[in-house]
Amino acid sequence: MKTLNYLLGILSVILVIALLSAMVSKSKINIPQKVRLSKLVIDSAQLSSYKALLKEEIEASMAKEPGVLTLYAVFEKDKPTHLTILEMYATEEAYALHVKTPHFLKYKNGTLKMVKALQLIDTEPLIPGLKIK
Amino acid sequence: MKTLNYLLGILSVILVIALLSAMVSKSKINIPQKVRLSKLVIDSAQLSSYKALLKEEIEASMAKEPGVLTLYAVFEKDKPTHLTILEMYATEEAYALHVKTPHFLKYKNGTLKMVKALQLIDTEPLIPGLKIK
Repeated sequence: MKTLNYLLGILSVILVIALLSAMVSKSKINIPQKVRLSKLVIDSAQLSSYKALLKEEIEASMAKEPGVLTLYAVFEKDKPTHLTILEMYATEEAYALHVKTPHFLKYKNGTLKMVKALQLIDTEPLIPGLKIK
Repeated sequence: MKTLNYLLGILSVILVIALLSAMVSKSKINIPQKVRLSKLVIDSAQLSSYKALLKEEIEASMAKEPGVLTLYAVFEKDKPTHLTILEMYATEEAYALHVKTPHFLKYKNGTLKMVKALQLIDTEPLIPGLKIK
């Protein structure tokens, strides 16, 4: 009985710690210091190859780089070769690191001949810490 | 001793439930069915009033409408009157409800004379469930 009591006590402590850490990680707010729109036009003949390379690059960046907060890419329904990427970086340093990563360089070099136009637009977000639910 | 044991048992059960629900809510993935870019040009003389109305509208929508997944608004640094909003709605129905809410109508009617141009662009997201960290 004493042992059971002791075990339940330990279990309670572990659960409290786990619960608190889950709550803290959930409420952590990243405020991006760099928010940009990238507007691209892609060669229609190479669109599916381009999409595959971009998807791989975004997934690697989100998984491996804590300072890449999002790279949300959308293709226009009426102009499927036109895309916009909402890019958010925690800091300028995070962006400088990002463009030197192997996955970014693979994307950049692999898509050079697919990209017909590229416009980089620095922005001021209205509510910087807003999320996607 | 028996009472303490009993209380610890109940506490453990409560904590397990709380922990599981925190994990579930953290891992819940909303996939937007409607993702749009809104591009606007605002009258420069009314820019600060416009920003205040837009901010109020976005905060109310995010807080009160589960189907509004984000309304991330960015103003171009080189053209401060030009803004783009990345809009995500869980469903078409959520969007239809959104445009009938009092907070949206307040924004819409309050900014009619501030908006010089408005373009709504329906899009296909590359990775629909991607989030902002």
